[in-house]
Amino acid sequence: MKKLINSVDGVVTDALAGMAAAHPDRLRVDVDQHIVYRATPKEDGKVAIVSGGGSGHEPLHGGFVGFGMLDAACAGEIFTSPVPDQVSAATAAVDRGAGVLHIVKNYTGDVMNFDMAAEMVAAESGTEIATVVTADDVAVEDSLYTAGRRGVGVTVIVEKIAGAAAEAGRSLADVAAVAKRTSEAGRSMGMALTSCTVPANGKPSFDLPEDEMEIGIGIHGEPGRHRDKIAPASEIAKQLVDPILAELPEGDRGVIALLNGMGASPLLELYLMYGEVAKLLDAAGVKVERSLVGNYITSLDMAGCSLTLVRADEDMLGLWDAPVNTPGLRWGA
Amino acid sequence: MKKLINSVDGVVTDALAGMAAAHPDRLRVDVDQHIVYRATPKEDGKVAIVSGGGSGHEPLHGGFVGFGMLDAACAGEIFTSPVPDQVSAATAAVDRGAGVLHIVKNYTGDVMNFDMAAEMVAAESGTEIATVVTADDVAVEDSLYTAGRRGVGVTVIVEKIAGAAAEAGRSLADVAAVAKRTSEAGRSMGMALTSCTVPANGKPSFDLPEDEMEIGIGIHGEPGRHRDKIAPASEIAKQLVDPILAELPEGDRGVIALLNGMGASPLLELYLMYGEVAKLLDAAGVKVERSLVGNYITSLDMAGCSLTLVRADEDMLGLWDAPVNTPGLRWGA
Repeated sequence: MKKLINSVDGVVTDALAGMAAAHPDRLRVDVDQHIVYRATPKEDGKVAIVSGGGSGHEPLHGGFVGFGMLDAACAGEIFTSPVPDQVSAATAAVDRGAGVLHIVKNYTGDVMNFDMAAEMVAAESGTEIATVVTADDVAVEDSLYTAGRRGVGVTVIVEKIAGAAAEAGRSLADVAAVAKRTSEAGRSMGMALTSCTVPANGKPSFDLPEDEMEIGIGIHGEPGRHRDKIAPASEIAKQLVDPILAELPEGDRGVIALLNGMGASPLLELYLMYGEVAKLLDAAGVKVERSLVGNYITSLDMAGCSLTLVRADEDMLGLWDAPVNTPGLRWGA
Repeated sequence: MKKLINSVDGVVTDALAGMAAAHPDRLRVDVDQHIVYRATPKEDGKVAIVSGGGSGHEPLHGGFVGFGMLDAACAGEIFTSPVPDQVSAATAAVDRGAGVLHIVKNYTGDVMNFDMAAEMVAAESGTEIATVVTADDVAVEDSLYTAGRRGVGVTVIVEKIAGAAAEAGRSLADVAAVAKRTSEAGRSMGMALTSCTVPANGKPSFDLPEDEMEIGIGIHGEPGRHRDKIAPASEIAKQLVDPILAELPEGDRGVIALLNGMGASPLLELYLMYGEVAKLLDAAGVKVERSLVGNYITSLDMAGCSLTLVRADEDMLGLWDAPVNTPGLRWGA
């Protein structure tokens, strides 16, 4: 196993310490509790947003803490849900009197632990909490870790849009509503050229022969839909675009497109893939209103990519364009 | 070879087409000539900046075209210098009557081709051209591709600082001066866990056993200083920091620090490495004034990282903080 780490046990703690060192002006990191906060808390009276999940998907979620996006992110161990105590501590800390939105990817552990945390905080302080669960992966109906679809790339887009709505002073019900609308308008599909290696396991999560790729992978090295011989990028793009379009909510509206790297695929290849995706969307009459290409929700050192499309209304686009200032996503600020 | 590409020959062209599709609002890409321009040219009377080099280092250089940074970037084939005709076309196109700065990494082909292009443009149009050559890699004195030190990570910082100086309306002499000062104040050192694979070769550029790393690598798969057994991140950080500090210009001033990923190392590991670097700098009494962690000057699908430190004066820090709006680096705009 080749990784830039000190020890298998200390990976998450050490990475959070590095994040704290890299962004002292923007983040305050509780390294012991594995919670990333904004350095400057949001003003009173605005909805706060907490997300989190297993580590290994960076910049998601900690890298999306900051103005215009999250107020706090709870980092679990690699590919492991944060615990209820973590989530409740983060939720209580960021509450500014207008309620807190939890954005949760659809994995059994995450959903359960965020639910427990929400109940704990509500019982203790009466804080109003809303939850949006993302479940955008069209690859599989159920998976090793989920009942229902896995939450993947749309989470990035939901966090951006909900974050902007909260920053604009909308109510908890309104922030939750646009987050839910965005989540439900998004579909994703991923593929891998290589497996990731979980540090604690020390070896690849699955074997993928030198001439094969896996279509429909998740973000934890869990199985995909099927294997194929490695194909040209144009063919791979088709294998991502077609199943997404088959399930994307219909309509005349354009999309927000995220061509996401899984961690070990260079930007050169991600741009190349985006070019192929853009051609297919153009041919299908789907207008790309906004796009994002890069590593946003990764799977450790997996090589490959995923595509997320969100059928976006004007409200979503306006919120997408609003200023954001986080380590992982920044514009207009 | 596992890559998201269509064909070995078409990699650069296809990736540039993807870049054009991803950033229609910000970039205009001459896909035939492999030149990336700003979508909205700079106003008359300001110095323009052209850089470029072999492809495979993305986001460098095309990803740094935009407000506050480059006016154009010329992309060669993978790890191959752009040709003089490309550079002269880009230079002529972006000239706004105040002269053009060429920022060139110190590789024999790049230096020669930018020089030829500068002579061509000067002879044809009288455009005043200044050139700054970056040569910050402390790993080797000469290399396969260079007389003198290789230009690596400081190039990103020079492009940012010179770009801000040009945007502020400084003269060509002044923009070149701060670029040169920045370049000379920077030192870098890199390491690899794995080799990169050049598409045209189809196999790794060098063999690195499963338990070894290479210290002092360049950005083209060229040899480093020496090999070692893989060590904890804290040890690796020391092997980067010590040789840099031994050669960094002395002084009381703090540094701009770039902890750069080589392409296939996940952000989790890069933050972790930055944490280790920050501890060592703190122990050495070197204050980090600004920092950047991520993939900025890569080497295809190489796993590993490099560290760049620039001993920065107030002028450099002010220019570093100025707004920038490019696909690869963006803040305040």
